[in-house]
Amino acid sequence: MKIKLGIIGFGGMGKWHAENAPRAGVEIAAVCDIEEEKQQDAIKKGYKLYATADELLADKEVNTVILTVPNYLHKEMCIKAAKAGKNVITEKPAAMNVQELDEMEAACKEAGVFFTAHQNRRWDRDMLMVKKAYDENMLGNIFTIESKLHSGNGYMHEWHIYKKYGGGMIYDWGVHLIDQILFMMPGVKIKSIYADIQNVLHEEVDDYFKIIMKMENGITVHIELSTYILEYQPRWLVAGDKGTMIVKNFACDGNIYRTGKMLEKLPPQITETEAGPTRQFAPVAPGGIVTEPLPEIQTDWVDFYRNVDDVLNGRAESKIKISEVRRVLAVMEAAWKSAETGEAILFE
Amino acid sequence: MKIKLGIIGFGGMGKWHAENAPRAGVEIAAVCDIEEEKQQDAIKKGYKLYATADELLADKEVNTVILTVPNYLHKEMCIKAAKAGKNVITEKPAAMNVQELDEMEAACKEAGVFFTAHQNRRWDRDMLMVKKAYDENMLGNIFTIESKLHSGNGYMHEWHIYKKYGGGMIYDWGVHLIDQILFMMPGVKIKSIYADIQNVLHEEVDDYFKIIMKMENGITVHIELSTYILEYQPRWLVAGDKGTMIVKNFACDGNIYRTGKMLEKLPPQITETEAGPTRQFAPVAPGGIVTEPLPEIQTDWVDFYRNVDDVLNGRAESKIKISEVRRVLAVMEAAWKSAETGEAILFE
Repeated sequence: MKIKLGIIGFGGMGKWHAENAPRAGVEIAAVCDIEEEKQQDAIKKGYKLYATADELLADKEVNTVILTVPNYLHKEMCIKAAKAGKNVITEKPAAMNVQELDEMEAACKEAGVFFTAHQNRRWDRDMLMVKKAYDENMLGNIFTIESKLHSGNGYMHEWHIYKKYGGGMIYDWGVHLIDQILFMMPGVKIKSIYADIQNVLHEEVDDYFKIIMKMENGITVHIELSTYILEYQPRWLVAGDKGTMIVKNFACDGNIYRTGKMLEKLPPQITETEAGPTRQFAPVAPGGIVTEPLPEIQTDWVDFYRNVDDVLNGRAESKIKISEVRRVLAVMEAAWKSAETGEAILFE
Repeated sequence: MKIKLGIIGFGGMGKWHAENAPRAGVEIAAVCDIEEEKQQDAIKKGYKLYATADELLADKEVNTVILTVPNYLHKEMCIKAAKAGKNVITEKPAAMNVQELDEMEAACKEAGVFFTAHQNRRWDRDMLMVKKAYDENMLGNIFTIESKLHSGNGYMHEWHIYKKYGGGMIYDWGVHLIDQILFMMPGVKIKSIYADIQNVLHEEVDDYFKIIMKMENGITVHIELSTYILEYQPRWLVAGDKGTMIVKNFACDGNIYRTGKMLEKLPPQITETEAGPTRQFAPVAPGGIVTEPLPEIQTDWVDFYRNVDDVLNGRAESKIKISEVRRVLAVMEAAWKSAETGEAILFE
């Protein structure tokens, strides 16, 4: 079968899917939106338009839908679509919480339709560089992975500023940043989650967070986002006992840094060390740190749709399993709980 | 009275005091060390030398001692010095734990001598820039203060690599980084402490830590150190709702960053925002972020000794009170407990 996609919600992400999914052989069968401005835009762009989701779901040509409505509507739309016999792709976050997701998954199972979430940032080049370093042990024993997004843009947009619509940056980006880490380390349990979540410029929703996850493999993961830190910190900092990797930004500027002389773990019986009499935080001598380029990565966001196509035609397993989506939502719930109580949440 | 200083331990810090304290009018009355190499060095430099602390403490000319011996010896030496009627300045950490400090303080009180700790990094220019921004509200409501020290030097030196001597970076530098924050925010209670503490290159002692303190005033303090992160992050990052301050290094390179248009906290009834249709983490338009220089600060480490001189001559209170030193040790103990248990420690 060929994916004939109905796009439910023609805002920013609805348009993104309309423009990009066809690159993977997806046919945009229909679009719906309740707002007139967005309807006009869809007509202008030549899409078959419906004014409501119910009408779109009644279209027999549509075999799959993507939910690009505000987050709080995902559950309702997913269950409707499943009952109408459509495969369901939901934008992230798939649901407002684990309980909603479970209801959505049950509805899809009952209807015998495929269900996944558009965690497109598993195909981000910057993250895949870090994943390669992790997989291939390029930095020795990693002790910390820091994944940070800072912006000077300040305000969020449209419905993202409202709590009841599922606004805020944990829902918008936290869901990606957490998913990337769990994707990077399949099967590694999370020991504990600690979070600081703040509303800096928005009354209702979070726009700054720091989430620390201590992983069973000894790595401490630090996830951080702010819409108002004006001098950005690197997108990724990964530090191991054989080097440090910096990926500065989405454009993937950066390097791997190593000491000229590799250090081994220091046994307790040695007193005088390689580092000599310099003070600990004095600059390293010239030539003491050498750089290597970041690994090469080829990636394409619409591989997501290529995988969905493979799944629907029995050629592959889904790359984004609902069990994984559920785990990310559980981490988000733990982060909220940690921020509210001040406690670390012991996990898994 | 004039400070006539006996230096107990003529290693790196012992020499630092010998060279620097005289700038504040301190007389170096005597030096002791048990190691022959250090004894020879003291003789060569023309100091009156004793082979043991007991001999130095018997010297009636010495009215004050500085303890620059490994950390585990501070308690024993302090109590001896107090009993010998000497005022006691101890290097940091003043003691291995709160209980030791209490015993030391009791001994000094009983002997009627003055007792303080050399928390010299209260006079650091980088920290005083941040303190000025905090005191003068230069960044609006601050939501996070990050104090970081990274080094590519790897190994620690001498006794700092042994646990039993009080080695490790929490004792060596954590004590400063915590003290600086508590000094910056007098009277502000700590709500909770969470820590990740690791041994990356040393078997026995910590060489990486991240300590998060949520303060009663709404600021989340992040203190971090590594001896093996090879591309350093800024020494200070301070972010408020009116700007971001970066102090890159001890040399105090850096700026204050502000958005061209100041943002006010966004009430929930506005839908469309200043930031327009750009995606959240797209670059800010040219000119959207403006820089200002960091504030000017004049400071001198030996003001520590000028204050001790003032105290001993009844002209001032001690700038470094044992109650403050005690609180820093309590934070360190909470950080160790957090790292061990995985829990956040509710505090004060």
